[in-house]
Amino acid sequence: VVSISTDGAAPALGQAIRQRIETLLPPAISDWARAAKQLRPSLRRRMPDADARAAFWRRFAESAFVTPAGRMSAAVETLLAGKSNPRGKVTLVGAGPGDAEYLTLKAVRALQSADIILFDDLVSDDVLDLARREAKRMLVGKRSGRPSCRQEDINRLMLAMARKGKHVVRLKSGDPMIFGRAGEEIDMLEAAGIDVDVAPGVTTALAVAARLKISLTHRDHAQGVKFITGHSRKGGLPDIDWRNAADSSVTLMVYMGARTAPTLARRLIAEGMAPKTPVVIATAVSRPAERLERTTLGALAGAVLDPCEPVLIGIGAVFSQAASETRSISGSGFSALPSLKLADSA
Amino acid sequence: VVSISTDGAAPALGQAIRQRIETLLPPAISDWARAAKQLRPSLRRRMPDADARAAFWRRFAESAFVTPAGRMSAAVETLLAGKSNPRGKVTLVGAGPGDAEYLTLKAVRALQSADIILFDDLVSDDVLDLARREAKRMLVGKRSGRPSCRQEDINRLMLAMARKGKHVVRLKSGDPMIFGRAGEEIDMLEAAGIDVDVAPGVTTALAVAARLKISLTHRDHAQGVKFITGHSRKGGLPDIDWRNAADSSVTLMVYMGARTAPTLARRLIAEGMAPKTPVVIATAVSRPAERLERTTLGALAGAVLDPCEPVLIGIGAVFSQAASETRSISGSGFSALPSLKLADSA
Repeated sequence: VVSISTDGAAPALGQAIRQRIETLLPPAISDWARAAKQLRPSLRRRMPDADARAAFWRRFAESAFVTPAGRMSAAVETLLAGKSNPRGKVTLVGAGPGDAEYLTLKAVRALQSADIILFDDLVSDDVLDLARREAKRMLVGKRSGRPSCRQEDINRLMLAMARKGKHVVRLKSGDPMIFGRAGEEIDMLEAAGIDVDVAPGVTTALAVAARLKISLTHRDHAQGVKFITGHSRKGGLPDIDWRNAADSSVTLMVYMGARTAPTLARRLIAEGMAPKTPVVIATAVSRPAERLERTTLGALAGAVLDPCEPVLIGIGAVFSQAASETRSISGSGFSALPSLKLADSA
Repeated sequence: VVSISTDGAAPALGQAIRQRIETLLPPAISDWARAAKQLRPSLRRRMPDADARAAFWRRFAESAFVTPAGRMSAAVETLLAGKSNPRGKVTLVGAGPGDAEYLTLKAVRALQSADIILFDDLVSDDVLDLARREAKRMLVGKRSGRPSCRQEDINRLMLAMARKGKHVVRLKSGDPMIFGRAGEEIDMLEAAGIDVDVAPGVTTALAVAARLKISLTHRDHAQGVKFITGHSRKGGLPDIDWRNAADSSVTLMVYMGARTAPTLARRLIAEGMAPKTPVVIATAVSRPAERLERTTLGALAGAVLDPCEPVLIGIGAVFSQAASETRSISGSGFSALPSLKLADSA
């Protein structure tokens, strides 16, 4: 039912585009187009008002993208009954680390059916560009250490919009279920009876692994991988079991550790981790300003990182590979790993 | 240049489809269509043979999807020069846990430009359906415990195809950089001078979190999350620091642990973890046969799991939320968490 024309310029190109589109559109979209064709003649009688018909078709088009397979008939009935106040919902969406190519299809579809998008300040413009044009975009972000974070305001806003029947997308950098406060947001929404769905994202640690082309669990070097945060609710190093964190057989990925990095490195060394343990400092991973810097735990103890940039610190033997000359880092944004280039030294 | 027609049935639907397509196609695609229009008149003279022209347009269409922005002119020159043996490459692609909606855009694009796809047996048909129709698909999978895994054969095949100028996609379930043997494959390919790229995927642990709507690092319950594997190279429990793994302040996600689950549970209890620690057993997550079962570490010690199904075991206080009656699990494949439904009891 959907046909593509490249104006006769390149039939092979048109065919290649069509193939790709078919895989990316919801499979039921042609059923919706057929239903539209059947409905059109009788709709003029049912809805004499032209504005009402236009509004109907807009709602119809949106429903085509969000209605689960097999529920088209029921959805069309609801639309025809003119129930203009649908049940609102909230989708927590993982925006990934920056590059829109790292979004999941589920995340893209959520963005493309959103009425309102509440996004953190680490979410990239490229990701926001994929959202439905009419969606209202609101920056609700809070950066680590900034005093003005009011989770209560975000919660109140999500609740109010969902109760108005809106599809609210809560867009969080990385994956929503790793750090951030998705747990609290979900608890609040479900307690209030709002439907919640989660579209996973590529968490920053895995984006770093993909960019470095290093397996975080390379079986010659690590028996597992651990994600921790570098700062506590109060801003300092979190009160965790640092002896456990210093386990050199497990790759350690530290989120939000720019401010506490030297303290963290000293603490790990005090708990027995070798100062020569390889470290990678990944800044703005997958963004145009991406930097992947290689150092050691000992050097990290004396370094000062820019606290205003999104940083992930990887610690462990797997990162020794990043040092090898043979490992090439391809793509835009960086050339090769400089051997030790930190923002400043204390 | 690309136009959509829904056969007059629903202009609003056509517009909604067009908007979505625009966000999903490479931005430069209209430049390629314009270039095609300019080229067409002179191509008949340049390439009098109709078959050669058809082959040219097929290569042209594929290039439109894989050429980086800004390099169209150079790519078209290369195509016109008839260099039919392009540089081969290998992309390691994360297939996610099963649901094709969890694929990243980068993964979809890699699948849609692949010449050959080497996939593991846990990769779902839905994911393979998104690949380019002409791509050759080869199951090279090895399931945990099956003796016939020959990594050397996979390596040889990837190398041979890439050297022939093919785009090889190595499609791995979950994220390629978490467990599996991507590290060894990358080492081998780069040592042989083959270009390697990585398209990250949603690792199973994060898919479980999304389906349960539970933050793995909910700050009221956990200070971090750790991914380990449940079986060693030899098949038994791996030789890791189990005292560290028994840290109840860190959420533990165990991959490939179906066979060793009871031994693992007993070991964690012996190292001091409470038998009442909440456990979730996630089977075939995000697939039609998905099961999310809730139990405790003590009960897991006496359970027998089906070793032929993909299982992820989550252990930690964050999963106590899964027990609460208020937490709803939406979507197809499961209704609610049964309180203790294991395959069998020893």
